[in-house]
Amino acid sequence: MSLQMGSLEAWAAPRREALNARLEALFADAWPAPFTAMAQHPLRTGGKRMRPLMVIGAFEAVGGTDLEQVWPAAMALELVHTYSLVHDDMPCMDDDDERRGKPTTHIVHGDAMALLVGDALLTEAFRLLGDHGDARMVLELAQAAGYHGMIGGQVSDLGGGGPVTDVETLTRLHANKTGKLFRCAVRLGALAGDASNSQIATLTRFAEHFGFAFQLADDVLDADEDAGEDGPPSFVKLMGLDETRRRAALETKEALTALSGMNAEPLAGLASYNLSRKL
Amino acid sequence: MSLQMGSLEAWAAPRREALNARLEALFADAWPAPFTAMAQHPLRTGGKRMRPLMVIGAFEAVGGTDLEQVWPAAMALELVHTYSLVHDDMPCMDDDDERRGKPTTHIVHGDAMALLVGDALLTEAFRLLGDHGDARMVLELAQAAGYHGMIGGQVSDLGGGGPVTDVETLTRLHANKTGKLFRCAVRLGALAGDASNSQIATLTRFAEHFGFAFQLADDVLDADEDAGEDGPPSFVKLMGLDETRRRAALETKEALTALSGMNAEPLAGLASYNLSRKL
Repeated sequence: MSLQMGSLEAWAAPRREALNARLEALFADAWPAPFTAMAQHPLRTGGKRMRPLMVIGAFEAVGGTDLEQVWPAAMALELVHTYSLVHDDMPCMDDDDERRGKPTTHIVHGDAMALLVGDALLTEAFRLLGDHGDARMVLELAQAAGYHGMIGGQVSDLGGGGPVTDVETLTRLHANKTGKLFRCAVRLGALAGDASNSQIATLTRFAEHFGFAFQLADDVLDADEDAGEDGPPSFVKLMGLDETRRRAALETKEALTALSGMNAEPLAGLASYNLSRKL
Repeated sequence: MSLQMGSLEAWAAPRREALNARLEALFADAWPAPFTAMAQHPLRTGGKRMRPLMVIGAFEAVGGTDLEQVWPAAMALELVHTYSLVHDDMPCMDDDDERRGKPTTHIVHGDAMALLVGDALLTEAFRLLGDHGDARMVLELAQAAGYHGMIGGQVSDLGGGGPVTDVETLTRLHANKTGKLFRCAVRLGALAGDASNSQIATLTRFAEHFGFAFQLADDVLDADEDAGEDGPPSFVKLMGLDETRRRAALETKEALTALSGMNAEPLAGLASYNLSRKL
């Protein structure tokens, strides 16, 4: 596993660095000028950039080579993910003061500016795709991020559809909250690389299994802190720790099987890395 | 003026009714199901629908006839305007309990859901344009709504760039906060109607003057309630009531002059109606 991880990071590091440079150039000429630093704040958290790496991995898996074609989609995915964290962290939502050891946007710049920063990140994602000129990408991202996707999952997670007490509903919640954006990431990467319909279908299948495996692994990792009646609904609570582990391994295997006919080492590496988090 | 107003409303009423029917069909199949009513709440406020009427007016002014071509843009403008109101009304922003005599979204559904409703309305605007298949419209809307447009204006309005104490800065604030979306409305309508570059330039000039006139008239209307040191910055405070009235009339005249070579009665009617609000 360590060799595999090493080769994943050898692939990921230069792409992450190039992506970060592009993200740091956003909002550079804001008016009023202080908004540049406000909007940059949540983008500089040193994240793994997993979603944009999935975009790039899918792009390369279908034969894409000129990375200029894939940056708008890769950046858009990270912007949408980051906006959702900025809004999620606000006092009226999860009320988190820190993320990865750094103060969240509303702690540094106040609630009103954090709200507007989130709005600006979301809008900027669509500006990049509009500027890239591919309306299909806009449609895919809006579907994945909207009320049929991530926002619907957040509404459900906050109890907007009542308490979540069964595995089927929790699965649907996470398929929307997390899975749809994973799915969107590989589909936008595939579109950027002029993929065939069959390649898009293969990558979609991969992402759906990977997305589920990601959430299962997350619940295993969080099993201790979320224990008890008061914590959020989780697969560990509803299925037990062993069954959640077993399902995470199974979904990862399905994800890797989906990729078997494709030259997609980095995507396979990301799925394997996810599972390794809990070993 | 009353005859002109009557003919404007004869044009506007059936279009507003058709638009409202389409807006009410949005979010119909949300999951979880209660989100449908939450997202519909701010769309059912009985507004004038001025921005979508500007989209349609521009579409028809450049020769567009099949309204099916213009609904996505018209709806998108109203969705972006409405999302900005939902977020603006939240306690961390302007903290308004009512809008047009009805309780605001966060009063009815709580702050967390209001935040997500705003996010969903913004995302839905881009979904409609992506589905329509015109990436240029996506780019125009994202530029107008983002940090170079509406959001930048809101940041400035909330003091994110320091206190606003001169006419030039206040003009720029409103050009971003309100004007860019007016400008975008006519430009999207023009794009939907396959306008020439010259027609787009004419309509843009109209919208820039109309947007300024709109804000000047608004400040005249609000002159009483916003009086005193504590109120928001306004043109009336910086230029006096008479000069603000004079500028509103002047900007309206410039807007109408821009349209003089075009068959655009409804757009002219909207600009005249705006000025009549303060007479």
